Parts: sequence; C-alpha cells; structure tokens
Amino acid sequence: MKGKPRPLERERNRRETRNEDRRPARAVASLFGVLPVLEALRSGGRRIEKIIVADGARQHRLNEIFELAREHRVIVETVPKERLERLVDAGVNHQGVVAIAAAADYVDADEIIDAAVDPPLFVILDGVEDPRNLGAILRTVECSGADGVFIPERRAVGLTETVAKSSAGAIEHVKVAKVTNLNRFIEDLKERNVWVVGTSGDAATNYTEWDWTTPTALVLGAEGSGLHRLVAENCDALVKIPMYGKIDSLNVSVAAGVILFEARRQREGGSKLQVPNSKPEQPLF
Amino acid sequence: MKGKPRPLERERNRRETRNEDRRPARAVASLFGVLPVLEALRSGGRRIEKIIVADGARQHRLNEIFELAREHRVIVETVPKERLERLVDAGVNHQGVVAIAAAADYVDADEIIDAAVDPPLFVILDGVEDPRNLGAILRTVECSGADGVFIPERRAVGLTETVAKSSAGAIEHVKVAKVTNLNRFIEDLKERNVWVVGTSGDAATNYTEWDWTTPTALVLGAEGSGLHRLVAENCDALVKIPMYGKIDSLNVSVAAGVILFEARRQREGGSKLQVPNSKPEQPLF
Repeated sequence: MKGKPRPLERERNRRETRNEDRRPARAVASLFGVLPVLEALRSGGRRIEKIIVADGARQHRLNEIFELAREHRVIVETVPKERLERLVDAGVNHQGVVAIAAAADYVDADEIIDAAVDPPLFVILDGVEDPRNLGAILRTVECSGADGVFIPERRAVGLTETVAKSSAGAIEHVKVAKVTNLNRFIEDLKERNVWVVGTSGDAATNYTEWDWTTPTALVLGAEGSGLHRLVAENCDALVKIPMYGKIDSLNVSVAAGVILFEARRQREGGSKLQVPNSKPEQPLF
Repeated sequence: MKGKPRPLERERNRRETRNEDRRPARAVASLFGVLPVLEALRSGGRRIEKIIVADGARQHRLNEIFELAREHRVIVETVPKERLERLVDAGVNHQGVVAIAAAADYVDADEIIDAAVDPPLFVILDGVEDPRNLGAILRTVECSGADGVFIPERRAVGLTETVAKSSAGAIEHVKVAKVTNLNRFIEDLKERNVWVVGTSGDAATNYTEWDWTTPTALVLGAEGSGLHRLVAENCDALVKIPMYGKIDSLNVSVAAGVILFEARRQREGGSKLQVPNSKPEQPLF
C-alpha cells in the first residue's frame, strides 16, 4: 500500500468500513461540523479516531477534509445520514460531518522502538476487531511490562471508549502506534534485528521452545481468522500454544497473556520450583 | 451453610439476588407458568439456572415451587412484575413465575473429581460475575486440558447464553459443577490430597515457583475484589502473577490462561529452548 490511496483503493476502503455498520455503535462523536473537523485535521489529527460523513453531504469544504484526512492517514467513513445522527445530540448542526476522538493518544512507531528497554518486547496485532479484546490485551501488555503495541490503521479496532474501559486503565500507560503497512513495518523491525514471531495453530514450534530473551515482536492474529497469510510468511518464526482439548484456539487476549508471561518468565531466569510441603504418602489420585 | 436454608437466610438470599437487577437482562425465560416450572423441578431441576417470581404473585402452588427449589438448590429470584414481563413474549400466560434454563448441563462435583486424569488439575472460581469472563475461562480451561470447573451456587454468574457464546463452544466440553459451600468443598479437596492454590496479588510465591505437577485445584477470585478472605485462608498456598507495570492485576480469564498453561508447561516437562538462527552480530538493541 502507499501513503496516499488511489481513488479505487479509497472506494474499496469505504466499502470495507461500511461493514462496520453491523457492529453496535460504541462511539459518540466529539467534533461536529466542517470547521471544527477541519481545524482538528489542520493541527495534525493525532487524536481523531475517524471522520464520519453522511451519504450525500454536499458541503463544499468536504473535499478539503478528504485531502487532509488522506494526508494525515485518518479514516473517513461514509454512512447513511440517519446513522450519523445517532452519534450526535438532537439539534446539533453537524453539517453531515463529525469526528470521533480516540480515548487515548497514539504515539509514533519510532517512539515505541526508541524507548524500548533492552531486550525489547513488542506486540503487533494483525487486525483485532473486538474492543473488549483489545482492552484486555492492552491491560495484559501493561502488566507484562512489554514495550508497546502496534496496530494496523485499517480493519482493526482503535482506541475507543470500550477499549479504554476494558483496559482497566492500562490505555493510559501502554504506548500504542498505528502502522500503515504491517508487512513493511515487520520488514523494518527485522532490519533492526528484532525477531518477529507470529502465532499460528499450525506452527511446528511450541511457544515454550522459543527463546524469548532475544529482542522480539510477538504478532497476534485477528479473532477467528488468525494472521493474514502474507504477515505469517513475513514472520521470522511461527509458534503455537499447544491445545489439549477439543477447542482449537484461546481467546486472543488470553493467548497474549500466556505468551507474554512465558517471555517474562524466561527473562527473569526461568522457573525456580519450590517443593511443596509433603502431603500424606498415599494420594487418592 | 446447609441444604435447606432457614427463612431468614432465604430472605437474605432474596435480597442479594435483587442486586442483580442492576445488571443488564441477558436471559430469556424458557419455562412459563406454575405447572411447567413445577414439572421441571420434579424431574430434578438440573438444567434450571434460576426461577423468577413476580413480586406479589399469589398462585397457591407457588409454595410447592419454593419447597422443591430449596430441595434441589435452585435459586429463586423475586423481581417486580414489569421486569419478569420483559423476559417473556407478549401474551404469554406466565402466572407470575418463569424459569431460566442453563445453556449447558451442570454435573455433580464428584463426577468431575472421579473422572479427573492423574494428576488432576481443577479450577475453582470464587465468585466470577461477568459472563464474558466465565466464558473465556471455560474456553481456557478446555484448551489447557484441565479437568473441570467448580463455581459457587450464589453470587456468581452461571452457565448463561452469554457464557456459552464467549466460551466459543467450550461450554459443551468442560465439566462445570455448582458447589453450595466453597470453603467446605475446599476442605474436601484437601482431604483427598489435592493441593488447593489460590491467587493473590499479595502472595509471596510466584506462580512459576509452584510445582504444578502435583494434584492441584487453582482458585481464582472475583473481578476486582479477588478471593474472599476465608477462601484465601483455606488455601494450602497462595501464588501471585508478578506485575511489571502500573496496573495491579490481569483480567481473570487472562490470569487463568497464564497459570493453567504454566501448569501444563511444567507437566509436559518444562521448556526445551531451541536456539534461534543467528541474527547479525551487532543488534541495534
């Protein structure tokens, strides 16, 4: 992909974001009308999660909004007018355009990489869509002391209010960066000598067999579908969490916890078992 | 507590369950009216999650329902008539009493214990209230191959439809038993030579230091409040998951995953690290 999407791409992206209509509305617009949205974009658009435009809106400065949104890589979603109106209080003059603010600031990817402790431990999310899962992942990342989270710009949930709530406050502490092109970003990390390790149920290596004391970025896939094929191919290695029952995968936030705390266990020098006090000699089991 | 609650206790229990009104209604009644509910109770009441009676309902056979519910330890909740009506379709003659079915069958505690593989690994939930968390825990338990889950009869979410959905199908495979008195049950397990290990942020021992290859029941506390004091005191040992950030606890389903997969790792013989192929000599980190 590229910085400025071509018209055809924009159209496809628009269709994709239309699919989000099926999900429950969880956002409340925080900027209404052409000028406020333009103003936020002119100052960089850093805290805008996305811009929503009513189908058929004809304000003549909308094109300026489209231009700036493209420049700052802010998603523009086109929705039926009635849906837009559900996002604003009655009587607000929205002029057919509103912006949803993120519940927390994003940082630049380089900011996460430069601030990482040695050896770094990053998390890349390849399209997590459920805000409660993203919230639980942010909480888990924070608790495990990992350095930050990278999420794709499109086809993934951003830092919404539901994410903030599910993160139990972690959203204020974990650095999250949006990445335009996940595969190019993975290449960048590999060039910087970070091992990029994806998760896949088909992997030959158990997650406990990987040496997590090396600089690593853990890549987790979307709920249900897992890693995109190209992303999986781009990883240095794939690991699996072995399944001992009939269900074939853990919830993605639980998988994140299992692997990040295994990484932490290894980094802390492994397990030092304490032998428990003895129970009676003849156990019933 | 005892099999048949005394009147005072019943009154208190009723008040407690009233608090559930604050939670969103997520159940749909599956049995309506005095006779169908009586019939289900007479055949044991195993798949009834709870019975809901409208405040002021005066059907003369209600007492028989109360008696049988007590006998089979089925919770009876009293709610305002309007709330009961939200659980049934318009026009249904509910006679002021409906029953909510569980989304899966419970088993007896002994059934889980008798069927356990050697060494057994059980999970006890001390009051998990969020159905999505319980669902994710069931999924995690199933994937980790643990032997079953024990939940308290009261002040905890049961096997609701939301739990079933969040469990991603695991609800059909994991054995779940309701336990009347958690502390007495823990005593039972200890007498059967099972180590009962609770989780607490204040514990001195890391979860990685515990020997999970012994017969063990892992006890996880409620969201927010953790283990009840008496339950914590009753455990053979308390372990903690060390926290490396500013947030002081993981989501309970993530905590379950971290510990159950550490138990599994130990039972499979620990980590056998594979040394990754070498990256360039001078890493940037």
